[in-house]
Amino acid sequence: MELCKKEISNTSKYKGVSEKYCHRELNHTGRCSEYPYLTHLKATHKRVADKVVRDSTMTTGAAWKSKDAGPNRILRWVMLLSDEELLQFGLDMSLMKPGVVAKLREKSANYQECMLVAGKLASLVYQMPDAPACPDEIKNYLEERFGAFTENSTTCIVCREPLSFSLFEVAQRGKAEIETAHSNPRTHSDENVGFAHRDCNIAQGNKTLEEFYEWIEGILVRVNDSNN
Amino acid sequence: MELCKKEISNTSKYKGVSEKYCHRELNHTGRCSEYPYLTHLKATHKRVADKVVRDSTMTTGAAWKSKDAGPNRILRWVMLLSDEELLQFGLDMSLMKPGVVAKLREKSANYQECMLVAGKLASLVYQMPDAPACPDEIKNYLEERFGAFTENSTTCIVCREPLSFSLFEVAQRGKAEIETAHSNPRTHSDENVGFAHRDCNIAQGNKTLEEFYEWIEGILVRVNDSNN
Repeated sequence: MELCKKEISNTSKYKGVSEKYCHRELNHTGRCSEYPYLTHLKATHKRVADKVVRDSTMTTGAAWKSKDAGPNRILRWVMLLSDEELLQFGLDMSLMKPGVVAKLREKSANYQECMLVAGKLASLVYQMPDAPACPDEIKNYLEERFGAFTENSTTCIVCREPLSFSLFEVAQRGKAEIETAHSNPRTHSDENVGFAHRDCNIAQGNKTLEEFYEWIEGILVRVNDSNN
Repeated sequence: MELCKKEISNTSKYKGVSEKYCHRELNHTGRCSEYPYLTHLKATHKRVADKVVRDSTMTTGAAWKSKDAGPNRILRWVMLLSDEELLQFGLDMSLMKPGVVAKLREKSANYQECMLVAGKLASLVYQMPDAPACPDEIKNYLEERFGAFTENSTTCIVCREPLSFSLFEVAQRGKAEIETAHSNPRTHSDENVGFAHRDCNIAQGNKTLEEFYEWIEGILVRVNDSNN
């Protein structure tokens, strides 16, 4: 599908760092829109729509506020700027702990990558068991860009159990039970992204899924050995 | 081994909540001591000795400071007191998030349990590969109370790989690579406690080890199914 790509007005403080453009089909009628496939979720499940946008475009946040803990979420493409460029936005990377800097830099991704991730996540949302029915127009759009839907096919990318849409509403200790997850935690791309149970995402840590499966296989071998 | 159990002077703000007594053998000569088996580690590897005491007797801390985040580590036996009793110590549990309260209460344990955990951890430390040699007097004491030493036998309780003493010195992003861990995260007892790699402890989460192994076994079955 060819996209409209007309520039969309950008009031962000980081305006100029990256373009921001229309993701409707080329020659569409009506107004341009950055996330045309999220209109339905925004109306029916705003928190889920917001989560798709947030996780696609923002880094994860600092656990607490302090100068050395870094910002609480920042646009991923802003993290592609050099330390010098960031200083002009009032962000002094030299004040942050090296671990925080490494984590933020690792989460960087350009605008195009982030927009592809958002579309992929939206399409996974609609393929969850008990997800709201997807309006035809949005379904056609997402299928053309991210592949045909198979109902109820969205599983946790780590444990491969079906992921119920209702888990978006469940939170324990203030943390949502579904998290955006990456097969390779250092790559933010549509092929590499999906949803996972919070516990699964935490267990995976900064390993790739391949490394994670090898690791737990080794654990079970040793546990069985020591039990025999 | 019968312990001296003579009361030791207690200057803690929580004095009176729990006794504090000598753990040297009954009829010992010289001064009483609460942790007679830690004298050597205190002299040679103070951070490790401090960690044994801290993890045995204190709850884990809040990730950041705020009224609703709870205290940054508190004595485990203090967490056995009622909300009313805690108020007298200036600790208002009703100000904290329910998740924080649950986590703190879960970590509660009485003085005796904590002291057994400290001894067990010390004996595991000395059985790590590349641990400092244990002075005979301490070895005899720990062996009599916690079983015979087998050199290099201390493994991560989760992944069962040998745990190198040198990992106590290694920290990533400010977090030590070895953590005190529990087979059942809700029981703080000498039989239930050990050391684990930080990643392993995090992956286990609040599952028992049995639950964790079942869980990862299920994951591998599903992964293999979907690959075939």
